[in-house]
This record gives sequence, structure tokens and C-alpha cells, in this order.
Amino acid sequence: MNVDGKQMRPIWFDAESKTPWVIDQRKLPHRLIKANLDSVDAVIEAIQEMFVRGAPLIGATGAFGVYVALFKSNGKGMNNDHIIHECQRIKDARPTAVNLAWGVDRVLQTILPHETHGTRITAALEESLAIVEEEAENCKRIGLHGLSLIEEISRTKKNGPVNILTHCNAGWLATVEYGTATAPMYTAFDKGIDIHVWVDETRPLNQGARLTAWELGKHGIAHTVITDNAGGHIMQHGMVDLVIVGTDRTTRTGDVANKIGTYLKALAAKDNNIPFYVALPSSTFDWTLRDGINDIPIETRDPHEITHIQGLDKNGELTSVMVPPASSPAANHAFDVTPARLVSGFITERGRCDASEASILSLFPERT
Amino acid sequence: MNVDGKQMRPIWFDAESKTPWVIDQRKLPHRLIKANLDSVDAVIEAIQEMFVRGAPLIGATGAFGVYVALFKSNGKGMNNDHIIHECQRIKDARPTAVNLAWGVDRVLQTILPHETHGTRITAALEESLAIVEEEAENCKRIGLHGLSLIEEISRTKKNGPVNILTHCNAGWLATVEYGTATAPMYTAFDKGIDIHVWVDETRPLNQGARLTAWELGKHGIAHTVITDNAGGHIMQHGMVDLVIVGTDRTTRTGDVANKIGTYLKALAAKDNNIPFYVALPSSTFDWTLRDGINDIPIETRDPHEITHIQGLDKNGELTSVMVPPASSPAANHAFDVTPARLVSGFITERGRCDASEASILSLFPERT
Repeated sequence: MNVDGKQMRPIWFDAESKTPWVIDQRKLPHRLIKANLDSVDAVIEAIQEMFVRGAPLIGATGAFGVYVALFKSNGKGMNNDHIIHECQRIKDARPTAVNLAWGVDRVLQTILPHETHGTRITAALEESLAIVEEEAENCKRIGLHGLSLIEEISRTKKNGPVNILTHCNAGWLATVEYGTATAPMYTAFDKGIDIHVWVDETRPLNQGARLTAWELGKHGIAHTVITDNAGGHIMQHGMVDLVIVGTDRTTRTGDVANKIGTYLKALAAKDNNIPFYVALPSSTFDWTLRDGINDIPIETRDPHEITHIQGLDKNGELTSVMVPPASSPAANHAFDVTPARLVSGFITERGRCDASEASILSLFPERT
Repeated sequence: MNVDGKQMRPIWFDAESKTPWVIDQRKLPHRLIKANLDSVDAVIEAIQEMFVRGAPLIGATGAFGVYVALFKSNGKGMNNDHIIHECQRIKDARPTAVNLAWGVDRVLQTILPHETHGTRITAALEESLAIVEEEAENCKRIGLHGLSLIEEISRTKKNGPVNILTHCNAGWLATVEYGTATAPMYTAFDKGIDIHVWVDETRPLNQGARLTAWELGKHGIAHTVITDNAGGHIMQHGMVDLVIVGTDRTTRTGDVANKIGTYLKALAAKDNNIPFYVALPSSTFDWTLRDGINDIPIETRDPHEITHIQGLDKNGELTSVMVPPASSPAANHAFDVTPARLVSGFITERGRCDASEASILSLFPERT
């Protein structure tokens, strides 16, 4: 997407170095640092230390990792034990990230039949680039399928922009292009529709304040950062026309696991008759699950993420400060589940559907 | 209340210096700094710069301000123009704080009939101390009236503590003793009931993480700091037995204006059948209002409070860091309104009632 007038993605292949590069997202929005993934260790570090985040982007990074393992194989590019071992090391960088193993294995299966190191390298690169383009294409379609929602509100609204609220960062930084929740916003904006986005800061890691605000601002989209606490109030007062969020995992019945706090926004949207949509590539559906609240395990992360907040100090240095008393414990539940009854609908790469098994399956009949 | 084994209030009269002192709450929890209000200018600074906060405490500080104006009158203690002018300066320190003018005027009216400077000083001190004791007594009664709620849950619960969630700081730091929302917690704890408090960090100013966590920890009450986003998830999973919050202003019909984000917690409590109580001294009822959402004006504060967060850096210095991009706007709605339909009941100094006009008036028949 647009960053200071240039097109940018969070991962790209550099023809000169012949290696993939990523944005080190940990330093955003205050530093735009690019990292060269020129070794398997660099790939692992980027995944483990969260230079990259978001399921589709982690999958693409894992895919490129197989290419790097071959390109930097030190003469062992035809040694399958070595390559499979390197792939396993990459998958182990974040064992719970389903897309990581998926991306690695897809490229690995593609290259194994090849009988020369050179054709393996070429095949790995082509397959990685294909994955990246597929992810971009999925998000582009999500954008187009969500566009009509925004167009419709824009048509019926007498004055002012269409006000959209989003939580966390389901933006291009988490995918490859357009994002998921943000895809309809970029698509509408690029079409000239007047929109304004309320950006939940999204504690504890502030992905909204840090990443979504940065993305939207760089693309030129009007937005306002608010605390996670504010959404209910602005919905009560007619300042929100539409909510769009992403999801990490969705049951076949339409329950949505997403960043902690999403459920509270869904409750407020329901209470104020505001449409609450979830944008997702269909790979995010977990077709084996029916009961989100009871069946989706919720990750509990390091309380340090709550107690310590990173930002820019008055000297322009990235600094972390501790807010509560050192002796007070904190608990960091990272996700919550929004029951299907609170979801107005899904926006997928195949189109929109309601948050019910029947409606979801009408878009994905092969899962019946 | 208990602070490191000593009894403490946020405001007290020191017999040796013959002046009131307060805790400078801006530095909590990392620094416990006491400020001597030994001049009218010091009183004004403490109110204006928010050394003190919370309606009852601001009222008490204003009351003591009149005493200070007399005690440090520089020979003008019988000059009514001078004293009234000093009182006006104190009231102007925070013009929207209703309790401030109330506290100042109550002491001013008490001293004016006195015919010597000495008796005026004595009367001002006695009236200020009376106001402080009345506030403490109100909170003590709120604690006793809320106690049975906690006792009942404790009796029916098979194992583990009674888990109470609170938002913001409606604690003794905001009143004089016990607090409002925290009064039932202190009362239950002091009676030996096993309780645990979930403390919403309460963005943007983090009064929960900074003040409520500090208060509860110093008194020895088990507590855990969580993000404002987490409450819905822990309610869904049976980890909350009761919610108690304070209020800044309450309509005669039971609509509750309180710190931004309270409404979201009330929605989640309703969705999970968890009792949601509001603790308040009856002075917080605004008997002239019927429709909270439309009639209570919501203060919009400096966006800097959202974008910049204060805490302790790694060198142990109080430091402020900026989280979002410098170019992203932020909006800081400071309060929201929880409609009466989401409130299980009120805990007042006269007892408990439902969140309906009829039930409220049954406790306060003089307002019929």
C-alpha cells in the first residue's frame, strides 16, 4: 500500500540481494526498519521476535524461509535431511501459528521432487511468490466484497464521512496487501468514498494505535485513535456507522476468536443497532469447531506486555515504562470469542454471508 | 486505610504545622509524595494540577482551603472582601467540580458570622474536619450496605475467592476513607472474607493500574491488573462473580455517568448474568436529570492523555512515552453513560436499591 508516496508490502523479494526482506514491525510507528532475511536464522528471528505478525504474513515468511534454506544451503541443497531439518527449525519458531507450518510445508512439497539445486531454488521462489500473490488476491477480493457495505451507508448518509470502527490491526501489515478488516476501507477510499476510521488503541500491545493508525495515515485515510474504552460511548452517540474487525479463528457456526476486547465492541454494536462485520480469508475458518467459547483455547501471554508500555520518549528514544505498582500481578488474556449471535456477517474472498452455519456453507459448499 | 502498616487518608490536618496535607496522587504508584497545603496558592495548585481527584476529596480540599485562607490571611482574616475573593480563587481552580464550590461555600457560610479572627479559624477547621468525617462515614456505610452482597456470594460459592471486577478508581484515594466502589471490598476483606479484585487498568489515565492496584495492594487485598479489553472474556469464563463501580453523576431514573468504558463492562455483565452494582454517596444523584445519555454532557479531554503514557523507565525515572504516530489524531471522551437497564442496583449510604426511579425514591423519599 501507499507509504510516503511509494507502494510497500510488509514482505518482498529483492532481486539484487536475491533474498526476501520484511518490515521489522516492532519499531513501528516510530521507526520504519527493514530486515534482510538472508539466512534461516534471520527468518527464525523475524518470526519468533515478531518482526512479522498476522497469520497470512507469517505463512508467507515461512514459505520464503524454505527458499532461503535452499539459497543459503552451503552445498546441501540436495540433502533432503538437511532441508527438512531447516524447515522444521522454521516451523518451530512459532509452533501455534497454523499458517507457518502450512506455508513451509507447501513450498517444501513443491521443491522435493526437483532433481537439481538450481531448479529447487527457482521452484521455491516461484511458490513463495505465488503464496504472496494469493494472499494479496484474497485480501483484494475481501475489499471488493466489503465495498458495497460502505457504499450503501455512504449513499444513505446525508452528510459527513462513513465512520468505521476497527479493533487491533487486521491491516496490510498483517497480510500482504489491503489487509482483511482494512481491505474494504482501502477499497472504498481508493474509490473516492469519504470515510473516517475510529482506531481502537488495542491494549496491551497497542496494535491499533501503533500499526493501524500508521497504515491508514500513510495511505491518507482520515482516522482517529481512541482508547478501547471509548467505542461504546461513540456508538451510543451515532458516531459509528459500521464496525469491521478481523479474526484469528472462526468456527463453522460463526463464533469469532479475535484480539481481546472484540467481544465488548460486538456487544456495544448490537446494543446500538450498528452492523458488526468480520473480514477473513476462508483459511481462518476452523471447520472442525462448533462452539467457540468452549472449544477455542485462549492464549495467555506474558503480563509484562500489560505492565510495560513502549513508546517514544521526549528525547526521541524508544523506551518502555512500567505503569502499575511493581508488586501488582497482571493477567494477559490475548483473545476473546465473540458469539455468532453478535456478528452481522462475514466478508470473505468469495463474498459475504451471515454468521450461521447454513449461510457460511452456502459460500463454502465443499465443507458441508 | 492501611499503607505499609500505617493508617492513611488522602487528606489530613497536621497539628504541628497547623495546615492540611494531601497525597500528590500524580506520582502514584511509583512515588508516595505528600504536599503541605500551607497557602491558598498551594491549595489551588493541588486542585488544579490534580494532586487530588474524586468529588468528595476535592470538596474536602476546598473546605480546608477556606481554613488556610483564614490561617494565612496576613492580618486580613476579618476582611470579608478578601476572604470571599480567596474563596472564589479556590472555586475557580476547577469550575466544573460541583463538590469544590459546595465545600468552599459551606465553610465560608460557617465562618462569616464569627466576630474574631481566632474564632473564625477555629470554626473553619472544625467545619472542614466535619466534612471529612461525614465523607468517611458515608463511605463506611456504603461498605456495610455492600458487604451482604459479597457475603452472600461467598456463602454460595464452593471454593475460591469472591471475584469482583472494578473499573477506574472509586477508592479511598478519591474520597477520604474506604472509597465508594471499593468500600464493600475493604469491609469484606477486613471481615475475613476471601476476595480477589480484577482491576481494569482504565485507559487513558490508568487510574485502575496506578491507583486502585496500589490501594488494594497496600491494604493486602489480592488483585490482578487486566486491560480494559479483558473483562468480557473473563466474565464469559466464570471468573467474575460481581462488578462494582463508582459514578460521577447519576440520574433520578438510574442512568450512570462514570469513567469511559464502564458501559462496555455493564453490557458484558448483562450478557453473562453477572450482577453489576454502582456504589455512590447520594450527593452523586442529580435529581434534575431523567435521561442520562441525552442530558449528561460528556467531557472531552486533551488527546495528549491518550497518546502519551506515564510510567517508570528502566532507570527508575517517571517518564512519558508517545505510542501512536505523532501525526495521528486522537479523541479523548472521558466518561460514558450506562443506562439503568444494565444496572443491577445501587449501594448508597442509606442502603441498596434498584436502578429505577421508584426504588431510588424509596430510599430518598424527600426527593419525590
